[in-house]
Parts: sequence; C-alpha cells; structure tokens
Amino acid sequence: MSLKVVIIGGGSSYTPEILEGLIERQPTLPVSEIVLVDVEAGKEKVATICQLGNRMIEEAGAAIELTWTLDRRSALKGADFVSTQIRVGGLAARAQDERIPLKHGMIGQETNGAGGIMKAFRTIPVLMEVAKEVQELCPDAWMINFTNPAGIVTEALLNHSAHKKVIGVCNIPFNMRHSTAELLQVPPEDVWIQFIGLNHFVFGDKVYVSGEDRTEDVFQKLLSKEFDYSPANIMPLDWSETFIQSARLLPNPYHQYYFQSEKVLEKDLKAYEENGTRAEVVQALEESLFDLYKQESLREKPKELEQRGGAFYSQVACSLMDSIYNNKEDIQTVNTWNHGTIPDLPYDAVIEANCVITKNGPKPIAIGEIPAPMRGMIQNMKAMEELVIKASMSGDYKDAYNAFLVNPLIQDEKKAKVVLDELLEAHEDYLPQFKR
Amino acid sequence: MSLKVVIIGGGSSYTPEILEGLIERQPTLPVSEIVLVDVEAGKEKVATICQLGNRMIEEAGAAIELTWTLDRRSALKGADFVSTQIRVGGLAARAQDERIPLKHGMIGQETNGAGGIMKAFRTIPVLMEVAKEVQELCPDAWMINFTNPAGIVTEALLNHSAHKKVIGVCNIPFNMRHSTAELLQVPPEDVWIQFIGLNHFVFGDKVYVSGEDRTEDVFQKLLSKEFDYSPANIMPLDWSETFIQSARLLPNPYHQYYFQSEKVLEKDLKAYEENGTRAEVVQALEESLFDLYKQESLREKPKELEQRGGAFYSQVACSLMDSIYNNKEDIQTVNTWNHGTIPDLPYDAVIEANCVITKNGPKPIAIGEIPAPMRGMIQNMKAMEELVIKASMSGDYKDAYNAFLVNPLIQDEKKAKVVLDELLEAHEDYLPQFKR
Amino acid sequence: MSLKVVIIGGGSSYTPEILEGLIERQPTLPVSEIVLVDVEAGKEKVATICQLGNRMIEEAGAAIELTWTLDRRSALKGADFVSTQIRVGGLAARAQDERIPLKHGMIGQETNGAGGIMKAFRTIPVLMEVAKEVQELCPDAWMINFTNPAGIVTEALLNHSAHKKVIGVCNIPFNMRHSTAELLQVPPEDVWIQFIGLNHFVFGDKVYVSGEDRTEDVFQKLLSKEFDYSPANIMPLDWSETFIQSARLLPNPYHQYYFQSEKVLEKDLKAYEENGTRAEVVQALEESLFDLYKQESLREKPKELEQRGGAFYSQVACSLMDSIYNNKEDIQTVNTWNHGTIPDLPYDAVIEANCVITKNGPKPIAIGEIPAPMRGMIQNMKAMEELVIKASMSGDYKDAYNAFLVNPLIQDEKKAKVVLDELLEAHEDYLPQFKR
Amino acid sequence: MSLKVVIIGGGSSYTPEILEGLIERQPTLPVSEIVLVDVEAGKEKVATICQLGNRMIEEAGAAIELTWTLDRRSALKGADFVSTQIRVGGLAARAQDERIPLKHGMIGQETNGAGGIMKAFRTIPVLMEVAKEVQELCPDAWMINFTNPAGIVTEALLNHSAHKKVIGVCNIPFNMRHSTAELLQVPPEDVWIQFIGLNHFVFGDKVYVSGEDRTEDVFQKLLSKEFDYSPANIMPLDWSETFIQSARLLPNPYHQYYFQSEKVLEKDLKAYEENGTRAEVVQALEESLFDLYKQESLREKPKELEQRGGAFYSQVACSLMDSIYNNKEDIQTVNTWNHGTIPDLPYDAVIEANCVITKNGPKPIAIGEIPAPMRGMIQNMKAMEELVIKASMSGDYKDAYNAFLVNPLIQDEKKAKVVLDELLEAHEDYLPQFKR
Repeated sequence: MSLKVVIIGGGSSYTPEILEGLIERQPTLPVSEIVLVDVEAGKEKVATICQLGNRMIEEAGAAIELTWTLDRRSALKGADFVSTQIRVGGLAARAQDERIPLKHGMIGQETNGAGGIMKAFRTIPVLMEVAKEVQELCPDAWMINFTNPAGIVTEALLNHSAHKKVIGVCNIPFNMRHSTAELLQVPPEDVWIQFIGLNHFVFGDKVYVSGEDRTEDVFQKLLSKEFDYSPANIMPLDWSETFIQSARLLPNPYHQYYFQSEKVLEKDLKAYEENGTRAEVVQALEESLFDLYKQESLREKPKELEQRGGAFYSQVACSLMDSIYNNKEDIQTVNTWNHGTIPDLPYDAVIEANCVITKNGPKPIAIGEIPAPMRGMIQNMKAMEELVIKASMSGDYKDAYNAFLVNPLIQDEKKAKVVLDELLEAHEDYLPQFKR
Repeated sequence: MSLKVVIIGGGSSYTPEILEGLIERQPTLPVSEIVLVDVEAGKEKVATICQLGNRMIEEAGAAIELTWTLDRRSALKGADFVSTQIRVGGLAARAQDERIPLKHGMIGQETNGAGGIMKAFRTIPVLMEVAKEVQELCPDAWMINFTNPAGIVTEALLNHSAHKKVIGVCNIPFNMRHSTAELLQVPPEDVWIQFIGLNHFVFGDKVYVSGEDRTEDVFQKLLSKEFDYSPANIMPLDWSETFIQSARLLPNPYHQYYFQSEKVLEKDLKAYEENGTRAEVVQALEESLFDLYKQESLREKPKELEQRGGAFYSQVACSLMDSIYNNKEDIQTVNTWNHGTIPDLPYDAVIEANCVITKNGPKPIAIGEIPAPMRGMIQNMKAMEELVIKASMSGDYKDAYNAFLVNPLIQDEKKAKVVLDELLEAHEDYLPQFKR
Repeated sequence: MSLKVVIIGGGSSYTPEILEGLIERQPTLPVSEIVLVDVEAGKEKVATICQLGNRMIEEAGAAIELTWTLDRRSALKGADFVSTQIRVGGLAARAQDERIPLKHGMIGQETNGAGGIMKAFRTIPVLMEVAKEVQELCPDAWMINFTNPAGIVTEALLNHSAHKKVIGVCNIPFNMRHSTAELLQVPPEDVWIQFIGLNHFVFGDKVYVSGEDRTEDVFQKLLSKEFDYSPANIMPLDWSETFIQSARLLPNPYHQYYFQSEKVLEKDLKAYEENGTRAEVVQALEESLFDLYKQESLREKPKELEQRGGAFYSQVACSLMDSIYNNKEDIQTVNTWNHGTIPDLPYDAVIEANCVITKNGPKPIAIGEIPAPMRGMIQNMKAMEELVIKASMSGDYKDAYNAFLVNPLIQDEKKAKVVLDELLEAHEDYLPQFKR
Repeated sequence: MSLKVVIIGGGSSYTPEILEGLIERQPTLPVSEIVLVDVEAGKEKVATICQLGNRMIEEAGAAIELTWTLDRRSALKGADFVSTQIRVGGLAARAQDERIPLKHGMIGQETNGAGGIMKAFRTIPVLMEVAKEVQELCPDAWMINFTNPAGIVTEALLNHSAHKKVIGVCNIPFNMRHSTAELLQVPPEDVWIQFIGLNHFVFGDKVYVSGEDRTEDVFQKLLSKEFDYSPANIMPLDWSETFIQSARLLPNPYHQYYFQSEKVLEKDLKAYEENGTRAEVVQALEESLFDLYKQESLREKPKELEQRGGAFYSQVACSLMDSIYNNKEDIQTVNTWNHGTIPDLPYDAVIEANCVITKNGPKPIAIGEIPAPMRGMIQNMKAMEELVIKASMSGDYKDAYNAFLVNPLIQDEKKAKVVLDELLEAHEDYLPQFKR
C-alpha cells in the first residue's frame, strides 16, 4: 500500500518540517504522493516550497512524488491524509487581530482573546468547505487540523460537517512532554503527562515517568527556576511559587494571558511600540526564511526554521499519521470529542486529551472530574468556544458579541462591542457570513 | 400554635424591618416570642433595637414577647425559625474588605471579589457553630440565612453542617421582580421572572406577567432608559443596548462588577478618595439610624431605614416564614440545593432559584440547561464558590489562594497572593481556622 | 374571551365525562365551543355522544356550542385546547394486543408489555399527523394527550413533532392522590405525593398532608389492609408487607404486572378462558353504555360510566385546562419533559412529575436522584420507551424487535420475534410505517 | 527488583494455572516469592497445591520460593501483588446458591440472580477485611480480585475500603477476544473488541482487527453457526438470527440467563434432576483434580484443569501483573471505576472496560453513551449491584430484599422474600452481618 498526503496551506513556511518528517518516516509510513495546495495569493510561496521539498526528497533518495496545485478538489481525490494549516487573510490579518485589541488596552493574540475569536470566524467557513470536499472526494481520509484556534476549529468540523474523521493537533502538549523530560533528564517517550483541558488551555495534572509519579519533582524543578520549559515562540514564563504549590497544575505557556494578564499586556504594548505586532515580526522572519528556501543549494530543512516557533509540528503530525496507519495504539495528545472523558464538559465538546491512537481514530482515556481549582475556568472557556463556533456558523452579530462578552480577556459589555465592530470591519473581506 | 423566632445578629440596624414584618403578619404567622441575639460588641445596639421593637409591638397592640440576650444557646431552645444576619468583625472588617483590594487596583466589594471571599472566611465558621447548636437545641427549626455572601454561606451549611433545614435569602430577586412590575406597571404578584444562576450572579431569563411572556417588553423598556430598576444601595446601572439585545438576559445590579469592571473600579476609587469606603459611609448612616432608634417617641420603623439599602429584606424573610408555616405552596426565589434544577451545575451546589415553598422546605422548579451566553460564567462562579467553602472549612492557605486565583475579579496569579496575604493579616482575629 | 375545545376521538364512551367537566367549569373556564372529531368508523358513536352532550348542555343551561365532524382540519381551526383520546383500530385491535401475548404465555395488556408497544406503534403516527395539523392550524393551542401509552406518546410528540405545546395526562396520579386522601381521611387537595417515574411506572416516594410528612402512616394503613386504593379498572392489589417496608415506595396499580407477573398472568389466563380479553369485556360494557347514551331522557353523565374505569379523566383534563387558562400556578401531576428534574434520566425524556401549571405550560418541580430500589428499573423502562418511539417513527423491524427484547414483560430473544411477528401481522392495516 | 505475590485462596484447584503463568513470565516479571494463603478448611488442599507448585518450579528451574500459610497477616507483609480467589463456604455453599432458587422455579447460578447476590453477601465482608490488612501491611500492593461476582466485589472494595489499588478481573472478555480471533482466524493480539457494560453483563459493540472494523464479519460467522465461541463451562449458546441482526451486540455467555431464561431454566432443572447442581458436578471434578495433583510424578499443570472451566484465568492475571510492573501501557479489559467512561452509569460505579494498563493502574478508555438497545438493562443491573453492595455492608434485611426485588432473574415481590429467607438461613454461618 502506498499513501497520498494532501497539505492544505502547503505554502506555509512550516511545510519543510512536515516534508522532512514524511521523508524520514518512509520505512513505516509509505507515502508515495504529496500534494501541496494553496490559494492564488500563496502561489509563489507554495512553488518555492515544492522546489525545496523536491530537493529534500532527492537528497534523501525517497520515492515520493511531490507536486503543488491551486486546484484543491483535484488534489483531494484519493487522499489518505489531509493536513490543514491555513491562515485566512495571511499575516496581514493576524496583525489586525493583534493590533486592534491592543489599541483598546486588551491582549492582542492570534489564538486567544479577541484575536483568536476572529481567526476562528475567518477560518471555520473555509475549513467547513474543505471538510465537505474531503467527504465527497476522499471520504476515508483523516483530516489533521493544525490551524489555530485548533480546538475550536476541530469542534466546529466534528459537530457541523458531515466528515467525522477529523483530529486537531497542537505542539503544546508535545512540547510540555519534551520539556518535562528535559527537566527530569529522562527520555520523552517515558513521560506521561495527565493532560486536562482544552487546546491552549490545557493543564498538566500529574507527571509520570515509566509509571512512577514524578509530579512533585517537576514542581520542585520549576520552582528552582533552573529550567524554563516554554516553547520557542512564547516569552519566558515566570509563575509564582504560590501558584505552583497551590494550584498544583502544570500550566501551558498560553496561561500567562489569563493569569498574568496585566504584565503580559504591558510587555505586549511595549513590544508593539518597539517592533510592531508579533505578526509583523513573523512577517520579516518568514521573508528571510523564503529567501533561504529559494537557494538551490539548500537540500534539507534549514535550522533557522526552528526559531520560527511552532517547532515539532512535524513530529506531532507525522507520529499521528504513523500511528493511525499502523494502528499503533500508542498514546498521543490530540483534540477530539469529549464523550464523557471529562464529565464536567459537554458530551460533544472537543477537548485536548491523551488518546490511544488507532486506525479508526483517537480513543480518549477517561480523565474524570476536573480538579476544583481549574474546573470553572475550563468550563467557561468551553462555553465561550461554543459561542465562537455558533457565531462562525450563523454570522449573527449577537452570537459574535456574546462570545466576546464572556471571553475572559474581554469581558466588558461595552468594549466588547467596540473591539468586535472594529475587527469585523478590518476583516470584512474574509467574513462573508457576517455580511448583511 | 404559637411560634418562636430567634434573630442572630439582632443588633443589626435592619432588625426593625423584620420586627415590623412579624408584627404585621400576626394574623397568619402567630409569632409569640422573638429573641434578639448578639455578641458583646453589639450589646448596646441590640438593647436599643429591643427597646424600639417593644415600642413598635406596643403601638401595634401585638401579643409578642421581645427580649435580647448574648446567650445564644439559651435563646435557641424551642425556636421555630432562626434568622441569621451577622457581620463578623462589623463594619470595620467590611472597610478592610473594600479598602485592601482597591489599594491594589481591584474592585473592593463586600460580597463579590476578594472582599466577598474574606467575608465568607469570617462568617462560615461562626454560622457552622450556630447550625450545630440549632441541630442540638431546636432541630426542627428552619434557619433562614441573610448573611452575605448568602449563596456561599448556605451551601457551606447545607453540605457541611448536620442541620439540613437551611434556606438562603437575598432581596435581589425580590427587588428585580418588584422593579420589573413597576416597569411594566403591573402588580408584583403577577410577575414571574425565570431566574437562572447564583446569589448575586443570578440572571432573569424570561419575564411572564400572569403567564404571558413579556420579556421583550422588559428589554424595550430597559433600552428606553425611562426606568432604572436597581435597588437603593447599588449605583445606577447603564447597560448597553448591544448587551441587552445579544445576551437577552436581565442582569442583576452586581453584574456590573463583572461586565463593567473598569468603569466601576474607576468610580469606586473616586468615591473612596472622596468619602472613604462604602463601609465608612454606612457606618455614619448607621450611627444616625441608631440615634433615631433611641428616641423614645419613635414607635415604628423609621423611613430613613429604607435608604440604608437592603430594603424589603423584611418582606422576603416574613413571606418565607409565612409560606413555610402555612404550607402555602407559593413561589419564592431562594437559595437551596440544585439537585438537577440546573443540570450544568453540580448536584449538591446551592443555586438561587424559583421554588415552591412548603412546610418541608423549598422545592426548586426545574430550570434546565443554562443559555449559552452565561453558562460558562455561572459555572466558573460556582467552582470559585466551592473553593471558598473548602478554604473556609480547611483554613488551608492553598485553598484560599486557589479561590482568589480563579475569582474573575482577581485572576492574577501574583496579585492574588498579595491581596490575600494582606487581608488574612487584617482579619487575623476573625480567622482562627487560618492560624498556623 | 371565549375558548374553543376540540376533542379528537370524540366518539369515545368517556366523552360525557369531559363534557360534564367543561360544563361545570364554565364560571372559570369560559368554553363557548366544543367540536367532537372522529373517524368514519366512529361516526355513529360520535353522533350519539354529541346528542347526549347537547342535552347535558341544555339541562345545565350552559352557553356552549357542541358539534361533531369527521373533518379534523376544519375542526382544529382556532382551537385553544385539543384533547386527544383516540384508539387506532378500536377495541378489536386492543383484543389482539391482549390475546396474542397471552397465547405465548406473556402478559397481554393494552398499555404495558407487547400490547402497549403495539398500541404505541399504531397511535404515534396518527398523533404525529394531528400535531402537524395543530401546529399549522392552531399553533397556540395546547394538545392534551390522554391516549395510552400516554408517556410514550407524549415523548414522541414533544421530541419529533414541530408542535411543542403538548402535555400528557393520566388518571393514575390523580387516583393515587385521592385514594391516599381517603386512606388518611383528609381532603385530597391537602395531599402532596412526591411522584417519581414514568407514566404507568410512577411511584409515590413521600406523602405530605398540608406539608406534614405522613408517608409512614400511609404504609401502616396499606399494611393493615383496611383499604385498597386501586382504581376501578385494576384488580384488587395485594402487596406484601416486606415489599412495602423495604422498597418504601407507593406502587401504582400497573406495577403488579412487573412485580407480581406470574400471579397476574395466571389470573389473566383464567379470566381470558372465562370471559375473553378485557377488550371484549369492555366492548360489551361500551355497547350497553351507548344504549344508555341514546336514551332521550338521559340528560347528564350516567353513573354507569364510572364502572368503565378511567374515572376522573374529566377532572384531570378540566383542571389542567383551567390552570393553564387562568395561570393558576397550582401543582398537578402530568407528563412533560424531564430537563433535569430527574438527573438519572435523559434530559429530553418525558417523565410523569408534579408540575406547577402555568399559562406557558407545566414546570416540573425538581425531584433529584431516584431512590436506589427503583432507579435501575425506571431507567430500563425509559430506555425501552425510547426504542418504542424510535421504531414507531422508523417502521424498522429491528428497532421494534429491540423494544420487545428489553421490555421486562418480554425479554426473551426468541419469543420477542414470535410475538412481534404475530402482532405486526394482526395489526397490519394500522401500521403503514412497517410495510416493506 | 524482585516481587512477592500473595494468593488468597491458594488452595483453589485453579492455582496451578496462575503458578504456571508466574513461572513462565519470569523473564519479564521477576517474582521471587509466592505465598499461598487459605483457611483451616482448605489446609489439606493448599498443602497439596504447594507441593505440586514446588515440583513445577523445580521442573522449570525457576528461582521462586513458594510456601503456604493460614496466617494471612504474616503473608501479606511486603507483598507487591495480592490475588484474591476465595470461595466463602466452599462448593457446599455454591450448591445452596444453585439449589434453592431452582426449587422455587428460578435460575440458580453462582454469579447471577439470587445465587450471585448471596455469594456477594458472603464474600464482600471477608475481602473488606483483606483490603484493610493490605492497606495496613503492604499499602503499595495491587489487589487483583478474581472472586465472583467480580464486578460487584471490586466496586465494594474500591468504594468502601481504604485500599484503592484494586482491580477486578474475569476471563470472559479474554475468552471473547480469543474466540473472536479464532472465528476470524487472526491472532488474538490483533483483535480489539469494544466492550460495554459490567462484569458478566458485558457486550461487545465493535470488533476491530488491526484497527479494521470486522464487526459485520463476526456477526455473519456467528449466524453461519460454523463456530461457537462460548468458553468451556457454559453450555453451547444459541442466539437467534434476529437477535444478532437487531441488537448488533456480541453477547457474553451469561446473557443467556437474561434473554433465554425459560429455556435455560428448563435445562438447568433437567440437569439438576440428572446430576445435581453444577456445584456438585464441580465437586467431583475437583476431587479427581486433587487426586491428580497429589501424584508425585506430576510436575506441570495437568491438562485436565482446562476442562474445569475458567481457563485462561492465569493468562489474565499474569498479563495484568506484567503490564503493571513494566508499565506496558497495553490494553486489557478489567473491572475498574467508571469515572465518566460510560456517562449513563454512576461516576463511582465499577465497569468492565478496555483500559490502558500502567504502573499506576488501569486507565479506562472513554466509551461514551451505551447504544439504546442495552442502555436500560445495563443501568438496571448496575442499580441492582449497588443494592447488593449496600446490603453486604449494612446487613440490613430490607436492603437485601430490595436487591432481590429488582434483580431481573427474580423480580417477584413475594418470591423475593421466600428465596431470600431460605438462602439467608442456609448461609447463616457465613453472613455474620445479617445476624440480629
């Protein structure tokens, strides 16, 4: 058997990572065809990536046919895996998601708060369309969604599209596992973090190493400050001793937005004044990456890509495809249906949980009730996510306002309107559903 | 049959209200004995109230024996109703609850945020002791708790004391009903508001008048600004049209702390600079009230008391006693066990809900799932309340910190510690459980 | 305001009861128009009833226009209340429901077991059609369903028809309340039975008289055998002392089918040999009733009707209409959506519960978890009911078989098929949905 | 590291199986000490087994110290695994569990119906005592319970003893997996059956082979009758085509008691008349087994043991210990806490589910809602199990009666008492908790 992988948003600067991953895994994951799909605006980029990719394949001596196209439907035919990593409106849209909230004294971030909500509004309709095509053209294919906000997008697809083979992935749990392993100086594959929560709002409740409970050690190490386990694209974290000892939960880097809001806002505002938004920083970084990608002499994934943040996405995606294809029954942390895994959250909600990965999809391992300190906040985030999905589908201004209203980074009945109005206007071209 | 009512915290300036209510209801609620109980520090006040009360009884020609005592145990013997309206630490403690958070740029309020949590910490141990004595000395008596935070206190008593005949009451639902009646120009008894939520975080979902759905009319009136339905002790409210039209829920006055936080904080800071805390304002008001109470010529509840805020407490309490005693099976809004009424909240949580009032207690009317816009926030408040109760009982600093951490008016992992530490120190005398 | 009532199945021998009730309640329930609707086969009967009814109206001097028609659509226009009391296939079909299971050594009963399931299969499609017409022609009307199995039928309508103003009623809870009152020699209106469960599978958990817990007294009286509280159409009951003292739940007369199965089966077989099925007995009774109805001299409901069983249906129906029309907020026991009232049952299940009756429908009073002795059996009955509804809608043989399989009166994987096949064939004309 | 295993009920005729398993697994499961514990009445048997075991160890050249004792406390010290396989009252008691119900026309079976309930009543107090000792003497040890009714016993221990490291095991899921593998002619380790339910009432919902859904194939094979997958000690099964095609669930052999009750009862009565109870048959079988065990020449587990039924217990137990010790994270089907795995069942119920086996215990894989055809029956069995546990702990006759009343194999309010009374008397010596 040979496999066909389609990468929607193939012009992304991250693509060389996943290509590298697929090349390396040839012995167990026999991919013979990869198609990069992008939109008109990404034409040049996707062509560049495709050329680089072909040089990488050649260098590795792999038997993979790599092509690119703007014709999504033709690409999807016969696909076994469809990875989605799109950015509707590009980095320019991200800059608005960051800039507009900041202007009103709110955290501007592309996956949390007002920015994250807007990204969902732009992304969900496009991916609903993709899911429809997948269901029509390659109904047995697994959609592996990286597009942020990954949890929200995955819930929208699972609950509202006809295609039910959808898994959401993120590198945060992977990074937490690897950083914890580094902290304890053990191999990452021996580490089991008991994750509880939602994408970008997931906590680690317990850390086991080869089945031994090492949670207390991890907290001690964190408090000793000798190590900082945050991934590349998140500023160094600084959690208080009291927090660590009282909540007794391993936070993820995005939790700073919620529990260190004031400080983060200050930093972000300062950073904005100095360097513009993160989107603008990334824009520059991307340009230099693509300059690199164009060099004929480059025949492998360049090291510079790792600085881009989002490292290890490749490993997350390729491990997942590998375990599905080979029915590995190993444990990976992905976004999938709750179905009782966390009884405090709605049955059909999407959660980020440790799952046994099988050929017929991820099977979440029962978690039970959320420890009191975080139960309410996780429930609140989930309710907010539902409102975001509702608004993404309905295009109803009231639904959108309600999502803004209850988002913990907004939660001001007047500012909610101001920021929402400005963002809706700024992104008008990408929000057909909100047109009157 | 004749009834004995014991009022714990009888020296409160509100007491003349409830005395007036009991006197007026003599025809249906045959109270023959009332005992006011207070602590040493309230001795003078309770004596003053008792004298005023006896003049009121005389004036009305009622056959009620009214006395006061500092000996709670002797008072409780044979009681049919025990009303609890205490303020551990008095207004001086309240002033700290208000002042300390404000100092750190947080809303300082006696029933919400850091202040409300501290009030619970001081109150719960005292009322647990009262409940224990009630269970021992008058096990058939109903405890009617007015003490704030009324929902949290009631949950603590129902879930952790042996005495299970406990009902929490608040005048907010009563005031919302009456204000809505005024708004629609109909008799309050014809108005049924479908309440959903928790004490001081309850929303009105629907308004019926004699069974007709008038919700839309209420929203229209609110938007026309011709009427403001807030009770006396809450500043005029000002909800945006978008909020009313999108959330489609009637807020209660305390919701401003959560959805208009910045503005309220500004106002409170300004008010503080000008007049000190609300506690200090109330202190002055109380002094002048007690001067009035002392006048021999005063033989009825003085009108000035209504300005004190908390109006109608008397009606709420006396209606409740009346309906219990007479098994009236009418509908009142009280704080009682959830037990499925709102399936999104824990089974044993206390909620504020419309209940059929019977001789064997309040029976909540099933509400069903919380409308999406508020589900998460109500769940979060309830989880926070559980943490408050846990800390009140355990005296564990970590539990207290966790409650602070997730409270939407705090939610800063570093400030939570700073404010908690300062409050614990300020209230040290009233927090024996937190002593190391 | 004047009201129009439409009675679907107006040719029923019970109709004089409801007519009497509507005539008597004129002062508070201003019904000015009643239309009796029936099908071709019931033409003569409905005409007879209409004539009797008009004599009753004349006798009472009431201003009610009473007519009959076979044209359901024209009747429904402008209706305020639509009562449904149909018998698809008539008593002949009932005889099959009773005879066929008996033949195979199973209890044959028209509302329980195989017979009850078949009655649901015949009834639900017809009432779905009625509900559709109601929604189209008189969307504000309340449908009040008496047709058995009343709980199942009501759940089918509430969850599968567009018309949501549907209430199911049964005289069992009414009779239990009245019999208990008689037992305790108190007025029925002072008795509150805490009902838990489903139509024809409802238990009384507690009995209060004017709010006093009298449960123990009721059990004592039941054990003393001085009184038997069963309604007219159910054979005398005979519950063991051990059952009463251990389960501590008041059974309803239909529970004998489940907990005294062998004995009941024996009796039923004997009765069948002697007198044929209950349907055939009723058939004879009905004929003599209609002979009576035809007598011009009869100008009121004849006493003989009470022996027919199903007494007090009239009071149940008329009380309900009265409380809805007048927004009485009194408590009646009806079949309505669970919505958390019993957390152990599905949210959208229909249960039989004490409800506050308002103009906008019945509001169930929260019950909480089912006491252990009956939790599982009630859950099993509800799951069985869901399967019955599924099969009624789908016409899928497999769904029908599954309902038979898990019904506690069948529960034999081989006999389930034999009895189902025979019943499907016998009722072929009334089961269009099961045609291949 | 070397491990100590204690076998409570070591005199069981099954013990050679588990000894064989432990000897074979030496390379991965380094057991160095095994202690067989039994009671006075089993002294001779346990000594015989110990001698046989030592010959087996010698033959295998394994370095295991095997001893026996009647002093449970001394044995438990330092244990790593405690396996419990006791039979309180021995086969004589089992004979009563089988004979008495049969006498009253009920199925008499040692793990289901009245017999199973009585076995729980006798067993739970003894194992509660063992759990208490384990918690005191070897708190880190895992208790692995084989004693039937295994699910009920495990729930009693998990919810009522202080020791929480308890896992219940049964060979039914193992046998179903192996038989299905044989049916499909694939290796058992490639088969994943999606199990749903409770011990001895577990269904297979889906069958995957290496992740491919082969459920339909299995049903086809079952219908073709070419294979019968029942284990040795259960009579050949005979499910109707309609059952298989409608319920679409793989039954386990014990389901015949519930869905083929009449036929099974007939067979059992006939068998009883011919050969006495199953207990008596087993008694004879055991005697001949022990004669065999005593032969000095026997140096391995004799083949005859396999006919005894309960085959593969050894593999189930040893696999579990192996996976725990080595933190294998493989998937095994055991009895453990529900905790949301099946949202239709109580949170703290014990279910039989596929679990990831880790050093810190079994982690069940979320199952989600039970398919409609079996939801109610499984809920009913679980409620019945709760009543059994309640009665086992309380010794209250009423609790015991309630368990009998709702058991689907009894469910007659009068017979329940008759059979219960007779069984309580017969087992008096082993039911100290029921003494007045």
